[in-house]
Amino acid sequence: MSAHCRTDSGIERSSSATSSWAPALDHADRPAFLRRLIFLASAIYPTFTYGDVPDRWVSGDETAAEKLVEGTDTHRKTLYRYLEQHAGAPWFLDEMFSSIDLYFLVMRDWRPGVEWFEKECPLLNAIGRRSAELSEVEEIAKKLR
Amino acid sequence: MSAHCRTDSGIERSSSATSSWAPALDHADRPAFLRRLIFLASAIYPTFTYGDVPDRWVSGDETAAEKLVEGTDTHRKTLYRYLEQHAGAPWFLDEMFSSIDLYFLVMRDWRPGVEWFEKECPLLNAIGRRSAELSEVEEIAKKLR
Repeated sequence: MSAHCRTDSGIERSSSATSSWAPALDHADRPAFLRRLIFLASAIYPTFTYGDVPDRWVSGDETAAEKLVEGTDTHRKTLYRYLEQHAGAPWFLDEMFSSIDLYFLVMRDWRPGVEWFEKECPLLNAIGRRSAELSEVEEIAKKLR
Repeated sequence: MSAHCRTDSGIERSSSATSSWAPALDHADRPAFLRRLIFLASAIYPTFTYGDVPDRWVSGDETAAEKLVEGTDTHRKTLYRYLEQHAGAPWFLDEMFSSIDLYFLVMRDWRPGVEWFEKECPLLNAIGRRSAELSEVEEIAKKLR
């Protein structure tokens, strides 16, 4: 798989020779990669597990469902603000494009939404914007339209 | 660090030479190790995040809090039953003792509790029991008493 590609704005992504989507097993950035991956999967993602269909957890109680959505929405923002402090540029792991960037590309469209990211987490938002501009991603997006 | 130790019942634990608590980076069991680790951290653990202090999420609504505890308790049992189908013996990764076994050793004491595991997930329960019997674990447990 090609490990090189260019965005509309000319930013390149490069990645390790052995894997295009993650730092190699013995790469110095591997721990940083795993920490961010686990944070997205085990802290941020569950806010959707428990907030997307609140009725699954507090069935029939509309007030409680609203509170659960509100609580998980607030918690998610706190977690994204923390992640913002650990985001590199142009990618999460600075020069190395990885699956973390792709993961966030998708999540950027979910609550709290692009406008919130633009305002509150500019580094994360820029990573998402750049990822969306990668020619490989644009090709896939075209097919999904 | 010693990678060998014996339980009271004579079962040994052995692990890779490069790391005592996880299969080596290039070991065939590494993917199985990571899958179980992620499952514990991103699926099972969040049932406690959202079920342990329900008032954090549905503040002041006692009925809703009860429902949230009930819902996360039920979901957790489903997840443990799934994990039971992927548990080796004597350890999660068969002959290789790993941090997955230690992770579960702690979680076995949490809801739904040891009695439930004994009855509903005998393979998981046996892993927890064996882990508790390891001389290294017993030494730490003694210090914590």
